[in-house]
Amino acid sequence: MARSRLTPEREAELYGAVLDLLREVGYDALTMDAIAARTRSSKATLYRQWGSKPELVVRAMRYNKPVHTDQIDTGSLRGDFHAIVGRTDDCRVEKDSALMRGLMHAVHDNPDLYQAFHELLIEPEMRGLQELLQRAVDRGEVAADNPALPYIMHMLVGAFVARQLIEDRLVDRAFLASYFDAVVLPALGV
Amino acid sequence: MARSRLTPEREAELYGAVLDLLREVGYDALTMDAIAARTRSSKATLYRQWGSKPELVVRAMRYNKPVHTDQIDTGSLRGDFHAIVGRTDDCRVEKDSALMRGLMHAVHDNPDLYQAFHELLIEPEMRGLQELLQRAVDRGEVAADNPALPYIMHMLVGAFVARQLIEDRLVDRAFLASYFDAVVLPALGV
Repeated sequence: MARSRLTPEREAELYGAVLDLLREVGYDALTMDAIAARTRSSKATLYRQWGSKPELVVRAMRYNKPVHTDQIDTGSLRGDFHAIVGRTDDCRVEKDSALMRGLMHAVHDNPDLYQAFHELLIEPEMRGLQELLQRAVDRGEVAADNPALPYIMHMLVGAFVARQLIEDRLVDRAFLASYFDAVVLPALGV
Repeated sequence: MARSRLTPEREAELYGAVLDLLREVGYDALTMDAIAARTRSSKATLYRQWGSKPELVVRAMRYNKPVHTDQIDTGSLRGDFHAIVGRTDDCRVEKDSALMRGLMHAVHDNPDLYQAFHELLIEPEMRGLQELLQRAVDRGEVAADNPALPYIMHMLVGAFVARQLIEDRLVDRAFLASYFDAVVLPALGV
């Protein structure tokens, strides 16, 4: 892949610039020209490396994600959940929250952004969580037919969205830890 | 209150027109002038009756809400939850979903809309749910110190938001019934 020719430093710099621009102008007003100017790249390079604006934006979001569930395997479901909490960076949550909110809105008007968002961010996240849950099933911690298993993402999304909506506060580590223990683990019978 | 001088038919007509306009132009572009013109009212009347655009918009949303939890009391928690499901109108969910999404976005840029939204929609909804849960505690169905009790709204908001985000589908009765049985009741120990 052409993408592999970037150094890790250059990749971080590029993705950082994309997210900065996204915060400044929003998805709809963001242009490949502006990204090229800000990152001192040519538009041709951007299109060769990422194919399209939605793909570049979603890869930048994914690169910036603090927790990658596929890197977590502590030996117990509760341990895995609390490892996710431990890697959550409260400052970053604050910075990314407005970004994600703007993107969620744009997703509904841009089918190509929705598709990239789904393929590159939601689906890998769901696969990571499903592997983590499958190991809990294999260890006998969760029944294979537990009816809450398909709803793990719904429970987690609820935690993030509802806290802001109801309490006007962002998710932080203490909240997430409490939510896992009070809602997610009991729903899974753990 | 001045509001009580409206006939129920006129109130329904006014709120319907507000929601139609909201769907057409969005919150930011919606003006009291446009509402006055569409409803053949004077702007002075609108301001006297509702005080402000945010309050009028949120009251219209609330008027349109299909389920009012404070009207539900079946004698069991599972019965109450399934009564909520039974009153959910699949067609209306579809119509209201875009509206709510637009409003959620506007809420973040308009503190007065956030406040009206919170006072007139979220708080009454939470009080209704809390009464419903308190009855379950009083009946001995749910332990008074069950740690999932403060998270009931988070679980429900998750069901609505995540289904659209993850599955690109709106919540319907079958999904809601399954989610209550698989997630909410087990988390509450029922």
